[in-house]
This record gives sequence, C-alpha cells and structure tokens, in this order.
Amino acid sequence: MAPVDDLIARHQETLTRALTALAERDYWTPYPEIAKAYGESAPADGKAAFDALLGTVFTLPGHPGTGETTGTEASPYGIELGIAYPVAETDALLTAAAAAKADWAAASPAARAAVCLEILARINARSHEMAQAVMHTTGQAYAMAFQAGGPHAQDRGLEAVAYAYAEQAKLPARATWTKPQGKRDPLVLTKDFVTVPRGTAVVIGCNTFPTWNGYPGLFASLATGNPVVVKPHPRAVLPLALTVRIAREVLAEAGFDPNVVTLAAERDGQGVAKTLALHPDVRIIDYTGSTEFGDWLEKNAEQALVYTEKAGVNTVVIDSTGDYKGMLNNLAFALSLYTGQMCTTPQNLLIPRAGIETDQGPKSYDEVVADLARAIEGLLGDDARATAILGAVVNPAVLQRSAAAAGGEYGDLALAPRVIEHPDFPGATVRTPALVKVEAHKPDDRSHFLTECFGPIYFAVATESTTDAIDLLRQTVTEHGAMTATGYTTSPAVEHALVEACLDTGVCLSLNLTGGVYPNQTAAFSDLHGTGANRAANSAYTDAAFVANRFRTVEVRRPA
Amino acid sequence: MAPVDDLIARHQETLTRALTALAERDYWTPYPEIAKAYGESAPADGKAAFDALLGTVFTLPGHPGTGETTGTEASPYGIELGIAYPVAETDALLTAAAAAKADWAAASPAARAAVCLEILARINARSHEMAQAVMHTTGQAYAMAFQAGGPHAQDRGLEAVAYAYAEQAKLPARATWTKPQGKRDPLVLTKDFVTVPRGTAVVIGCNTFPTWNGYPGLFASLATGNPVVVKPHPRAVLPLALTVRIAREVLAEAGFDPNVVTLAAERDGQGVAKTLALHPDVRIIDYTGSTEFGDWLEKNAEQALVYTEKAGVNTVVIDSTGDYKGMLNNLAFALSLYTGQMCTTPQNLLIPRAGIETDQGPKSYDEVVADLARAIEGLLGDDARATAILGAVVNPAVLQRSAAAAGGEYGDLALAPRVIEHPDFPGATVRTPALVKVEAHKPDDRSHFLTECFGPIYFAVATESTTDAIDLLRQTVTEHGAMTATGYTTSPAVEHALVEACLDTGVCLSLNLTGGVYPNQTAAFSDLHGTGANRAANSAYTDAAFVANRFRTVEVRRPA
Repeated sequence: MAPVDDLIARHQETLTRALTALAERDYWTPYPEIAKAYGESAPADGKAAFDALLGTVFTLPGHPGTGETTGTEASPYGIELGIAYPVAETDALLTAAAAAKADWAAASPAARAAVCLEILARINARSHEMAQAVMHTTGQAYAMAFQAGGPHAQDRGLEAVAYAYAEQAKLPARATWTKPQGKRDPLVLTKDFVTVPRGTAVVIGCNTFPTWNGYPGLFASLATGNPVVVKPHPRAVLPLALTVRIAREVLAEAGFDPNVVTLAAERDGQGVAKTLALHPDVRIIDYTGSTEFGDWLEKNAEQALVYTEKAGVNTVVIDSTGDYKGMLNNLAFALSLYTGQMCTTPQNLLIPRAGIETDQGPKSYDEVVADLARAIEGLLGDDARATAILGAVVNPAVLQRSAAAAGGEYGDLALAPRVIEHPDFPGATVRTPALVKVEAHKPDDRSHFLTECFGPIYFAVATESTTDAIDLLRQTVTEHGAMTATGYTTSPAVEHALVEACLDTGVCLSLNLTGGVYPNQTAAFSDLHGTGANRAANSAYTDAAFVANRFRTVEVRRPA
Repeated sequence: MAPVDDLIARHQETLTRALTALAERDYWTPYPEIAKAYGESAPADGKAAFDALLGTVFTLPGHPGTGETTGTEASPYGIELGIAYPVAETDALLTAAAAAKADWAAASPAARAAVCLEILARINARSHEMAQAVMHTTGQAYAMAFQAGGPHAQDRGLEAVAYAYAEQAKLPARATWTKPQGKRDPLVLTKDFVTVPRGTAVVIGCNTFPTWNGYPGLFASLATGNPVVVKPHPRAVLPLALTVRIAREVLAEAGFDPNVVTLAAERDGQGVAKTLALHPDVRIIDYTGSTEFGDWLEKNAEQALVYTEKAGVNTVVIDSTGDYKGMLNNLAFALSLYTGQMCTTPQNLLIPRAGIETDQGPKSYDEVVADLARAIEGLLGDDARATAILGAVVNPAVLQRSAAAAGGEYGDLALAPRVIEHPDFPGATVRTPALVKVEAHKPDDRSHFLTECFGPIYFAVATESTTDAIDLLRQTVTEHGAMTATGYTTSPAVEHALVEACLDTGVCLSLNLTGGVYPNQTAAFSDLHGTGANRAANSAYTDAAFVANRFRTVEVRRPA
C-alpha cells in the first residue's frame, strides 16, 4: 500500500465522524483536552523536548534558507528561550512553494485530507511539548496553553480539513450528461470536474494564539491543495515552527515535497508579512492581529483572497439574572482568563444605573460592580491559583495599559490591578484585572471604552436603562466590530431585543452563562468563532465560505 | 395557509429535484427549451405583450422614482422601441432597499427559495414575451433569445436558488451541545444558528445576455436574504425591467415589501453603476461586462463582495480529429452563433503549420482553414437561415471591427465578412464572420489575436506544432484570461497535455465536440460557466463559493 493510501485508511473514520459533527454541532473531539489522557510521562516528556530546543538552532531539513538564523522570542515568564530559526528570502520561499505545488495539487482531496489528519495526529501526540512552546511565547498559563494551544487548536484545524474535504467532494469527479433529442439519439457527454488550488497561501500568525488562530487557515489552504508559507509573529515562532516541522515530515513520508509547507521566520523589523502580501504569487492570506494591518491587507493585497480576524470591542449587557452568584463567578473567570488577552474577552459591561433584578433581590449599579470586583478578588486571591488562570502578560503595551488603569487614567477604579509574583517563574509579568467605573454618555469615558483596550482593563458602564444598553451594544458593534456579545436577562422581551440587536449588527451572542462555559470560549465542531458580519473579522471559523473559494473547479467535457 | 407557505408547498418538489440535479450533473431542467411546449398561442401572445409595451412608460407600482423617465434602448433589428423607464435617485433606491430588508431577512431560507421559484415560474410562463425583449435589446435571433434569454437563464437562476438554499441549510437551525464533565453534570447549551444577509446587492447587467448573466447573481443574493438593486445595461433594460416587475408582484403577493427588488434605470451617461458600487450600503455586486470596469469594481468597491465576469481570449487547439466534417460543422456553428457576441465564443484557432491528421487523411493548415471557411459559408448560405443563427450585431464597435476585418486590417482573409439583409427586419445589422490567417509568432499578428476582439472576427493561427499551440493556449489564458478552451485531438498524449494546460491555467475545456453541443454553450445543473481561476472571471456559475459568502451566520447560545 502506498504511504498515502495507508494514511487515507488510517484517518477515514475520524474524517467521517468530523463531517457528522459539523452537521450536528453537538460536542465532539478526537483530541482529548484532559492532560492526563496523553499518558503519565507525557507532561515531563513534553517539558524535556521543549527544554532540548532552548538555546539551539531550530532545524528544518530541506527548507530554503540563506544560512542565517534569527531569534526574536522572549518568554513572558522570563526564561531565556534563545532559539534561532533559519531565515529564507521571500522569493526563495515562494519559488519553493511553487515548485512543490504541482504534486500536492494533483493529489486527491481524500489524500490531502489524510495527510492533514496525520499532521494533526502527530501534533496531538506532542501536545505537552506544544503547551510549553505556547506558554513561553504567548504567556498563557500551562493548562490553557495545553488546551487552547493543543487539542482545541487541533480541533479547529480538523474542522477546516473536514469542511475543505466536503466542499471539494460536492461535485462528482465524473458525470455523464445525457440530453434527449426527441427521436434522434441523445446527446451524451462525459464531464470531469477537477478541483484546482488557487495558489500559494500565507498564514500570518499572532502573538497570543499562534496555533488556535493559525490552524484554520493553514489547514483550510493545505487541504484544498495550496502550498502554505507560515509567517509567525516574531514573538511566537516556536509553536508554528514545530507545526511546520511536523507537517514537512508527514508530507515527505507521504511522498510529497516538504516545501508544501514552509516557515517565514524574520529578522526584527523586516516586514516580511507586507512583502509576502503584495507578491503576485500569493493568492490566499489568513491573518490574525491588529485592525490596522488587517485593514491594510484587505485593501492592498488585491491579488489574494484575504481572511482577517482583527480587533473589536466586546460588550456584556447586564439586565437581570436568576443566578446572581453564577453570573458574577462566570464573569470573574471570563475577565481573568489569560489576563483578558483574548480577542473574545468582554471589555464593556453595561449595567443600568438604576440597578438590576436578581435572585438575591435588586442590586444597584454600585452593588453589581462591587460584587463583581469581589468575585474577581476571590477568584484570584491565592497567587498560585491566580497565575494558573491569568498566565502572564504578552507584551509591553498591555503592561502599560494596566499601569495606566492603576493610575486612574481610564476612570475611577472599582478594582485596582495587582502585580503578582509567580511562584515558579520570578521573571513572569503577572497582573490582575482593573475594573473601571464609567458613564455611558460621558464623552471622556466614551473615548476610553468605545475603543479596543486590549488586556485586563474592563469598563463597568452605567447606562440609563437596559434599552440604552442595547442601543450602546448596537452602536459599539456597528462602529468598532466585536468578536462576542454577552447578555444576562430573565426577561423574554429583553432577550428578544438582545437577539435582534446581535442579528442586525452581526455578532454572536452568549446568553445567561453562569456555569462552566464562558463568553470568550468557543468549541470547534459546534460554535462559530466570529461571524464575518462586522468589522472585527471578515470571516468565521469555520463555515463553507471560509473554505469554498480556496480552490476552483475546472471542467473537462468530451463526447462519451 | 399563508401565501408564503402555499409557495413553499408548491415549489418544494422542484427545489428538491434541483438539489439532486446539482449533485448528479446529468441533464435536467424544469423549464422546457422547446418553444411549442408553452402552447400554440404562446409565441403570438408573447409578441402581442411585447408590442403592447412599445412606446409606453414602463410601470413599476410602488417603486421609488423622481417622476422622470428615460429610454435608452435601440433594437439591433431596427424597430422603434420607445419604452421609457421610471428614474429613481440612487439614495432613494438604497433607502427603499434598506427599508425592505428586515422582513426579507427574517423570512426562512425555505420561504425565500419558494418566492424565488415562484418568480422564476412566472418568468418562465412569459418566456415568449421575454424572448422578444431579449431579441430586440441584444440582437439575438428569436430562437436563441427564447432559449438563452428564457428557460436557460431561468435554469441558471434556479441553480443559484438551489445552491443558496443548500448553503443556508448546512447548519442546523438549533442544536444541543452536551459536554461530559466526568462525574459532574454535563454542560448543556442550546445553540441557534441564524443566517443573516450581508446587505444590499447590486446586479450590473450586460447588453448581450441581460437575463442569462443577470439571474445567477440576482437570485443568489435574493435567496440569501439580500435586497437587490438591478442596474441594467442602458441598451438592454426591458428584459430586466420585466424581471423586476414580476419579482415585485410575487414579493408583494407573498407579503413582502416589493422594494426588495428595484430597478436602477439611468439616463444616458449618468454612471449609476459607479455611484452604486462605491456606496457604503452596497455589500454585494454582480457584474458582467468589460474587463476595464470589472477590474475597477474589484479594486474600488472595497465595502462589497464583487463577483465579476469580464472578457478573455478563447482558444481552440486543432491537433487531429476522427471526424473532420463534424469538427468543421461544429466550429462553423460555434463561430456563427449570435455573430460571435458571446463571452464563450472561441476567437483563436491554433493549427499546426504542417497540418493535421483526420479521418479524411492529412490536411494542411491552408486546407483546414479553407474547409472551415467553406463550412461557415455553407451554414450561412441561405439568408433566412443565416439570420436565424447570426441574429443582429449588438453595437457599433462590433460593426466597426467587422468592417476593419473586411478591409484586411487584421490580416489576410480566408473568409470575408458579408452584410446580410434580414428578410423580416430591413433595419437589422447582420454580418457573417471573418476568418483571418495569422502567424503564431509574428509580432503584428500577435498584437491582433492576443487581445479580445469581441464579435465575428476569428483568427486561424499557424503554429509551429501542436506543442507550440498548447504553449500559446497556456500563455493566452494566463495573460488574458478565457471563458472557454476547446481541443480536437485523437492523440491521448495531446489530450493529456491539453488537460494539463487547462488545469494549470484554470480554464474549462471542451474536447472533440463534433455533434450538437458547442464549445460556447454550457448547460445549467451540469456545466460550470467560467472557473474564477483566470483573469476572465473571479467566480463561476454556480458553485458553493458563488453563494456561501452572500450571507453570514450569527450564533445565539444559552443554557439548555
């Protein structure tokens, strides 16, 4: 059996199950999110593998390169990484991708899906090593780095592979067309439908979720036959470098040119993303990062399809609740997780000035804010537990904003941020959230909360009423975009108004979350991440539209 | 039963059958292409309905308007049309579309599909009236205007509706997500997936195929919940005005605001397409027409998804044939049909200088060219039959090119164009094709044939070899784009090379057509029109990619 046929057989069941999951949208994953499912020695083995990479030159056999290397990473936990990556000229990467394209394009969609699933399976087996790499580049705490950077990211990759396979299988490979001609013989043609890739794809990774945000585009492009150049964020290279290395190993074993997947590590300030984005060979770009560069890509990379996830302002509307404690705990965790460095973390909490109804009686605006502050303090009271939730701060701009909040720059503090010493990593930059009290209609306040304030600064916005809050939600999503919207209400009328506001402005809504699901988390195979219907992103993980245009179909017809 | 439920029931079977047809790609249509299937009196009734429109003001009850009217059409058959259309300001059209949007967006995909199918059914019933409208705006002969402007266009509309329905039905309307939590209670959420339209769509129609090229975008946008402003070509308003009127009638009867579909008739030189294209409310544009304006739209209409079909240079490679007579007859018809005014008509016929092998022995380049000229002359020898195939010339630029060819401007003539008097319409502008002999590598010749020469001017290009011809095909498609490629060969090796060239450059290929199917014709539910993989078009009729991004999905999740 040829290696690729073996892979097809090995992964057929997973692919089939994934397709079912995408239609059903119930919970499913082939990649366990529980750390111990990977074996008793796995955490230590992963740590050892990670440690062995520190201070070395990262090797990518057969990869284009100038001979130079570059190292641009700094762990938010303060440890020395010192990993140097091979540097290649943009033209060399694109030439290698072009040369690798033909065989990969000629492989069947089933073969490409199987290769992708083997890559994901091998990445999955190394989830603990990946967790270390993600932790020490993004600042995520280990448990989160393991889950979000490991199995959850793999889920999103598999999801893209399954969609890609389904879209490519939509037309039959061959059809017979028989058109009756009355008493004469019918016209009969044989028609072949061949999917062809669009061209070289580029994935531009982000600092906070290099794998989770990188895998959908990587695997969607790969599964549809496009070679992919992976351009990691200079501060989060390792997770994608490991991914690229594993992908190249699997490709080579399956008989393909490993340059189907390459790594564009760059020297500081080299601006490789811009160079790649404007190159005529580059036909697909997946990007996660700032609104400014995302907008630039959408406007300037005219020769490419551009899929962006940028930034937005996420809003919670608090109208009423039947589980006050559950609501506070849910929000406290959502606002603490990874120090608010998620594109999905709520930023503005809109609370009617007159207060809200709860199962514990009416609560005034001040009470809700104070109780939320207390819930956060309670959650993060123990330093060890706090660091396991907060992780570390990913970049200096977030630290600056935290300091500015502490200095009262954004408004009165209901909760002041706190500097925490990490018990294991003395160099780690750990901060607790700041909760700022602001007024919905005060211009100074609006200038702060009506713009993305990435990191652990949250605004408790006093509104005139729930209606006023929903209006503000509408305005915020329309003007600034949003990845998430959240609501708490026991009123069917308010729920209806919230749903209408979110449908009209195009943002996904989480209602009355009080348990173990948080507004900033989405589950692959069930939840959509983003909508592509507001300014925060022009696409979503993952739907047919994310995949269907990464390939085209060429028809060849001839008399039967 | 509410009107819309009645429509759903009435059209369910057709929709289901269409979905099956799209997967099978065998011959199917619900709209007979045989004129007499519409009843004995239908042609005369259609003519009477058309005649009743001449010299009148076209009414669109409830349509936005300034009170002014405009008439910009001139029949290529020389008859006076004199139909005036109501004029509306762009802002009034977009305001009306925005006001109509909410109810249409809130309708279910099934309801929208049913309304679209009712519109198509009513258009279908009036196919003979539409044939007159298409004939006297495009210049197509009646039989073609009936088929291509009637049932075949309706097929392409239904195809788009079926795809739109399927894509919107991909996610369940509601799902339950149950995540096990070991010994604790599982997490259970209810998730609603709601499709939301992208926004107002604009269809920019063309002069030659206002319905066939207009319906895919119109119905794809409509079926996905977007209001549509139809901007017809100033010389081909009536077919789309009739379409808009029927659509508005059905919408109103089904309880929707008829302004879901409006008509943007314009005064001469008003440039409404540009104004619409740059308006922030316009989120989808479908365009058929010149490369220049299509490229402008792709570059400048940044706020919109832009689907374009532009121009290309279509090539035939003639290597060898087992049916010389069949090949000549097929090509003669393909080059004569509608005087070459189809975006799919072959322009360049690449023939090895040393000649080709045929079932009638070897034929030199000169013999092939002379025999093709004779085949065309034979086909068009009788004026009445000739006009029934050729139709009339749609615009002065085509007439000028025909005259230039007649004057030898493009090269030596193997077949000189002829002016034909139409037996029924003395004012009709009817021309037969010109066949020009050129050399593949002569710079002067290349400057002529390596650019689109829209209309009945064809180039018999002498190449060094078949390999040279295939290389030239590759170069032509890569540099200029193409809607079709055609090949004749009995050699498996040449066939393989042709297929590879077409897959690499992204153009659909018709091989060895010698019977009643022609390279310039595609059948809905089976053939793709265009690929979106070369410069001639950025999309195809119809695949999932043409539809899947016209709507987005908003998820609402809550504890179960």
